[in-house]
Formats: sequence, C-alpha cells, structure tokens
Amino acid sequence: MTDDIEKKQQAAGETVSAPAAGQAALQEEHAAEERPLAAEERREFEEFKRQKKIEEIRRLLRTIDHTMLKQTATSADIRKLCNEAKEYGFYSVCVQPVYVAACREFLRGCPQVKIACVVGFPMGENLTKTKVYETKQAVRDGADEIDMVICISAVKNGQFGYVRREIKKIVRAAHGRPVKVIIETSLLTRDEMVRAASCARDAGAAFVKTSTGYFGEGARAEDVRLLKETVAGKCQVKASGGIRTAERLKEMVAAGADRIGTSAGKDIAKQLREADEQSGSVHS
Amino acid sequence: MTDDIEKKQQAAGETVSAPAAGQAALQEEHAAEERPLAAEERREFEEFKRQKKIEEIRRLLRTIDHTMLKQTATSADIRKLCNEAKEYGFYSVCVQPVYVAACREFLRGCPQVKIACVVGFPMGENLTKTKVYETKQAVRDGADEIDMVICISAVKNGQFGYVRREIKKIVRAAHGRPVKVIIETSLLTRDEMVRAASCARDAGAAFVKTSTGYFGEGARAEDVRLLKETVAGKCQVKASGGIRTAERLKEMVAAGADRIGTSAGKDIAKQLREADEQSGSVHS
Repeated sequence: MTDDIEKKQQAAGETVSAPAAGQAALQEEHAAEERPLAAEERREFEEFKRQKKIEEIRRLLRTIDHTMLKQTATSADIRKLCNEAKEYGFYSVCVQPVYVAACREFLRGCPQVKIACVVGFPMGENLTKTKVYETKQAVRDGADEIDMVICISAVKNGQFGYVRREIKKIVRAAHGRPVKVIIETSLLTRDEMVRAASCARDAGAAFVKTSTGYFGEGARAEDVRLLKETVAGKCQVKASGGIRTAERLKEMVAAGADRIGTSAGKDIAKQLREADEQSGSVHS
Repeated sequence: MTDDIEKKQQAAGETVSAPAAGQAALQEEHAAEERPLAAEERREFEEFKRQKKIEEIRRLLRTIDHTMLKQTATSADIRKLCNEAKEYGFYSVCVQPVYVAACREFLRGCPQVKIACVVGFPMGENLTKTKVYETKQAVRDGADEIDMVICISAVKNGQFGYVRREIKKIVRAAHGRPVKVIIETSLLTRDEMVRAASCARDAGAAFVKTSTGYFGEGARAEDVRLLKETVAGKCQVKASGGIRTAERLKEMVAAGADRIGTSAGKDIAKQLREADEQSGSVHS
C-alpha cells in the first residue's frame, strides 16, 4: 500500500515536472508537504488512509473462492463455509457437485456470494461427455461458475485439439456461466502449460487455473506469470493449491492472479487485519 | 504355500481320524510316508511340487487388477499395461474412463484379460446421476467391470440409504457386469466401514474394495478381515492401495482378499518367481 502511494506521488511528480510552467506548481507542492497539517486535516487524512486499507483488505478477500472439496466434508461443514463466505465477503464458495444444491439453500437471499462447482475433479480423466453431463447438472442445481479439470493424459499425448474441443463443450454446457480451466501446472512442463492455457483461452474459458490442490506443490508465482502472459488478457487467472497465508495470497495477486482458490480464507482474513492493525500502530 | 499344504494334510487327517474303521488307513498312510521314494517316484514328486508352486504363483497373479490410474499416463503406457496383463496372466487392467475404448483395442483377441473402469474416481463426490452416466458410457466403451467410489460425505452425514441407493443404481447401470464398491477405508471409522460395506452387500455389489490408493495408507489386513466378515460371502473383497510387494499381496490374500488392485504387478510377479527359485534351490 505504501508502494501504491509512492507510485502515485512519483506519477504526480512526473506530470508536472516536464513543462517549465509546472515548476511553480511543484515548488508549491513541496511547500505544502513541509507545512504541518492542521489537526482536522490530519484526522481526515488518517481516516482516508484507514478506509483505503480496509478497502484494500476487502478487495483481497473478494478475490477468494472459499473452498471445501474434501470428501469427508459434512453438510454442517458446507453450511459453515457458506456463512463464512457471507461474513468475510469472499467471492464464492467452491464445492463438490453433491453440495451445489445445498449451497443454493444455505446462500438463499445472498446473491453476492457465488457458487463454484468442480467438474471432472480432481483427475480430469473422465470422458468429455461425462464432464459435459456433470456441468449441466451443476448448472441445474444452481452453480454460478464451473471449475473443470482438463484431460491431463490428452496433454501428455499431445492431443491439444481434444483438450480445446473438450473445454469448448464445457463452456457451451455452462450456458454463459464462467468456466475456470484447471491445468494442474505441477504435472506439466512449461511448454505444456503454455499450450494448455492457450487451449483454455481459445475455447472461451473465463479463467485458466493452476491446480486442484491434490497433486504436486500447487500454485507458483512464476506459473501464474506465465499463464497471465499466455492468455494475454483474454482470460483471467486463478491461482490455487497451497495458498494458506496472506503473504502467499499477495504474492499470487502481485504475480497477476485475479482469483485465489483456498480453504484458508479465514486465516488469511485474520492475518490481513492483524497486519493492518500493526502497521496502524506503527504509524500512529 | 507350505501353509496350504499343511492345511490340506490336516484336513485329510481329520476326514479319516473320526471313524474307527479309518485307523487302519491312517496307519497305512503313515507307513507310506516313511517308505523312501524310488528315484523315478522322487523325480515325479519334485515335478509335482514344481507344478504346484507354478500353479500357486499363477493363481496369485490371477488375483491382480493391473492398475494404471494416474492422469499423466499416455496411450503408450496403457498399451504396455495391456501387454503386461496378457504376459503375466493378471485378471484385468484397471484404467480411467478415457482409456477404456483404447484397452478394448489393445486387448482385441484376448478375452481372458478383463477391463475394469473406475467411476466417480477418486473422490466419489459426484452426483449419483453423473456416476450412473459414467458407468453406462464405460459399459458402452467395453468395460467388463466397474470400480466405483461411494459418496464419502454421505457416509459422514449418516445417509446410508443414499449410499445404498446409489450403489444399486450403478449395479443396474452396469448391466450384469461386476461392480466393485470402493469405500476408502482410511477415511472411515470402523463402524462406518461396516455400514458402508453392508450397503455394498445389500445393493448387489460383486466386491467391496478398500481404497483408491490416493488418500491415506490404503489396504490394511485388519480392514480386509473386517470387510470379509461383514459381507459374509455375499460379496468378494478387493484390497488395494499401497500393495507393492509379493509379501503384502500374500498378507492381503491370507486376510481374505479375493482380488488385489496394484500398479506393481510386474514387481510382484518377479518377487514371487524369485522366492520360488530360492525355495527350490534350498529343497534340492
């Protein structure tokens, strides 16, 4: 955040530094910087800074797909997940197909929390037909977004036409709802990542997503950057797998992630607020 | 193997020991045991023992579902899997849905090697409808057996009626082909194992199966015994997950497993043959 402020100051400095006519304004600004703030001004400014930090935390929490995919999750766990998503302002809950209808119930009257459903999860080695069928059922049950796993073996076989056609069919079955395409970066070479992400981009996916969280190390900043570069603004990027701290979340966002999949949203929220309180006490 | 021989001897002993009329026969048999074998007889006896050991190894290899489920498996890997199943005399190949049709091709003219297809694999948290759909597609592609994962969350919610009905629907969709019901023992309590296995038994499953191999420690002998006891002869038991040696395979078979799921079939075959050669050299 202090970085942001510095950047804005630099930017402001640049815009007035070039023309000779700006010199006077620059001097005036410097004079203003040196003038001590009046008490009222100081309070207003502190409030502004506080609001900005709160807004920043809110923005970061709003990137989170609050995720519970383990097969031992009970109805009570899923209800809690939904309540937490409301309370913390997460973007969505991300759940298994068996729980989509329950989430629709638990989130009744709360349209701001979306429901994301996984498809072909977590291995992706189902037939395209089955994934399409599962997508349609998820939409019928009330899913707002679809997180599908690509057919990894098709990537390994070099069948990128198959991969692209499959994604296209899921996008069609999702009927306008955003589709996130999980390519499982930890199982792919750099070249395979680029080619798989290109398939997602060309097939109309809304997101390319790094990982299921069940195989390998999960999201790495360098992979997020590579995917971001590959999709070149045509898709967003979701980082997921092993993101369990505020620091890791910020690292992923800095690398270009637009959405974060994590089951540690509550801990992350706590860490963000604590960091905020600490930085507040340092500055006051 | 020596255990088996001992058991047979005991059994033989028991059948003749009860009636008084049997005493003479028993004495005659003892006399026969003490009489030294003639050279020709000795050779025949060695050949008999050798054949028996070969038969025993063949029987053990025939319990194996030769398994390759990892999502990075290529077509070439699956072709190799099929060829090995033929060569070693494994019961079946066990593969992901995307590879069933390919296996049908690779195993053309070789009906003794069956094709098992996983359904709802590996988490089981798909809708019943989707699992039924996936089962029908697998049958259409040429699967001989279905290895389905139960809905673990339904077990955790205590919804055993749901679990039983789901299995029943898969059994119906499999159209007479044996259905193996994976209950993922490492995620269940003892009581949940018994109740889940009872669902499989009552729903007409051919097998109850311990594990996917992807969560927890996999098959344990005590779990195999518990499942065997629970299904009481109405289903068979398949042990899977972490069975990578001949010793572990024998442990599972001794505990009551009728089928073994493993991706280490080749290593196990090698170990069984080496053990046989060593025991042969000790005895000669």
